[in-house]
Amino acid sequence: MSTSPTLVLTTGGTIDKAYFDALSEYRIEESAVPALLARARVTAPFRVTELMRKDSLELTDADRALIVAALREAPETRIVVTHGTDTMTETARAIAAGVAGKTIVLTGALAPARFAESDAAFNLGMAFAAAQVAPPGVWIAMSGQVFDGLKVRKDRAAGRFVPV
Amino acid sequence: MSTSPTLVLTTGGTIDKAYFDALSEYRIEESAVPALLARARVTAPFRVTELMRKDSLELTDADRALIVAALREAPETRIVVTHGTDTMTETARAIAAGVAGKTIVLTGALAPARFAESDAAFNLGMAFAAAQVAPPGVWIAMSGQVFDGLKVRKDRAAGRFVPV
Amino acid sequence: MSTSPTLVLTTGGTIDKAYFDALSEYRIEESAVPALLARARVTAPFRVTELMRKDSLELTDADRALIVAALREAPETRIVVTHGTDTMTETARAIAAGVAGKTIVLTGALAPARFAESDAAFNLGMAFAAAQVAPPGVWIAMSGQVFDGLKVRKDRAAGRFVPV
Amino acid sequence: MSTSPTLVLTTGGTIDKAYFDALSEYRIEESAVPALLARARVTAPFRVTELMRKDSLELTDADRALIVAALREAPETRIVVTHGTDTMTETARAIAAGVAGKTIVLTGALAPARFAESDAAFNLGMAFAAAQVAPPGVWIAMSGQVFDGLKVRKDRAAGRFVPV
Repeated sequence: MSTSPTLVLTTGGTIDKAYFDALSEYRIEESAVPALLARARVTAPFRVTELMRKDSLELTDADRALIVAALREAPETRIVVTHGTDTMTETARAIAAGVAGKTIVLTGALAPARFAESDAAFNLGMAFAAAQVAPPGVWIAMSGQVFDGLKVRKDRAAGRFVPV
Repeated sequence: MSTSPTLVLTTGGTIDKAYFDALSEYRIEESAVPALLARARVTAPFRVTELMRKDSLELTDADRALIVAALREAPETRIVVTHGTDTMTETARAIAAGVAGKTIVLTGALAPARFAESDAAFNLGMAFAAAQVAPPGVWIAMSGQVFDGLKVRKDRAAGRFVPV
Repeated sequence: MSTSPTLVLTTGGTIDKAYFDALSEYRIEESAVPALLARARVTAPFRVTELMRKDSLELTDADRALIVAALREAPETRIVVTHGTDTMTETARAIAAGVAGKTIVLTGALAPARFAESDAAFNLGMAFAAAQVAPPGVWIAMSGQVFDGLKVRKDRAAGRFVPV
Repeated sequence: MSTSPTLVLTTGGTIDKAYFDALSEYRIEESAVPALLARARVTAPFRVTELMRKDSLELTDADRALIVAALREAPETRIVVTHGTDTMTETARAIAAGVAGKTIVLTGALAPARFAESDAAFNLGMAFAAAQVAPPGVWIAMSGQVFDGLKVRKDRAAGRFVPV
């Protein structure tokens, strides 16, 4: 299908968390996305841009404005945004309000990509495919499903995204 | 988007290869797909059916007839087929000739899912999303791209799928 | 060498940390040790006992008394203790003061065993071997080295154990 | 305990097997040992030398003579040899006959180190510790046990090393 280049915009979130023994804490670190794409042997054209490294609970309106601006200014029309899961739907609404004519797919992970047992690679694969195949609009690829980005919520206790 | 159930039909291939020390050889083993879907925390409805465990170089016309029959008889209209990569495009042609009105996405892996550095999880994620989002037809999700299943070939030396 | 059974006593620490999305935090979880030993295809006789699930910074004198009591009461004379790294040397001193005639090896990890890139499996292997081969006493197996448990400290900034 | 440098001599075997899609086969590849030691955060002094890349069933008397010569000439007295498992005990006998005054520990893996579920890291950790702690002689570290290298055999059907 489309072979136009895909942009992957990283903003942080659990997908990029690493463990720092010296601090006994987890922190969002250099994005795991380039390593995931290398392991996936992606040869379709893409570029990765790190926009910020934030837990999604810490994202402000200003951060969301930055994300929207980056999406508007990008030459690509097919874009994956990696993002913390807790406020992913809020960012989806901001994008829907601010960006038109592009296929934008948000994804992330419930367990860090650096974990052996993580949903990160699968989710990134879903987002990559959805960015190529789905019509313009805002989508969320999580829990094995490509959701309309405005008709989904995270059920935090259950650890899954569900339609609304 | 669609939440109709997804069928995953496994046929073997590198994605399911395991190592048997007693034989000093690799063999296609119990499919790695259920474990990949569990790790991906897929909560969208799906079922997995193991149809055969074959290297795709060993697939016969009779095997392909079996695959086509299974696809026709399945109640699902959104189907992922995991398959060895070497003759994936040949099976795509057989499916295109024999199945209509369903979205069928073939995928596999260049390195076994049981390897730490495998493209399996990403590819399966791509296929899962494409099965939900793409229109009816036969697609191949490999190398970071969702291809028209009739317009792609494997460049074996380069280890990638390319459009034709 | 010795084939007398090995006891593995787990007390928690980074080696057993898992991530809980619903809490956006990491917590010490069911020990990763049994899975590590299964993956290592250990057929030498052993048993695993979970004594506590604590970050080693939270261990109290009462906890250390419990550990010492468990080591004294165990029928095994070759024992591995998995433990958080920050106060591992303090527990080593408590054991040296309270247990005699047994080979006791403390180990742990700087990155959780559930991470793909963890030192856990290697460290547990070191401890297992040292428990079989080393003379009675208290040892610490970390950073690729088997240390006398009373002559080692953790250099937290450098993320390594060094002799003193 | 000993902090004298450890030599790791790699000879091939399953531990170093990788999968080559273009050939649809597994081959012994660049040794996985340096990556395993990096992941294990080994800071104790060591060096790794690749001597050959062979399946142990293919090792000849001349190969074993090379291994013995490398062990004799090495300045280190504590040495780990990674080796295929099928003829590991035969090489142990050759080493016992040809090298004196050094602690030499053979190890390997029943599943390639590049597999997520491999015994490689644990086994290498066992060997590293045994090389530091065991007296001079030839040892085999497999199946969770440090064996006298002359009193052990591989039970190939059971996939384990057992004492003889």
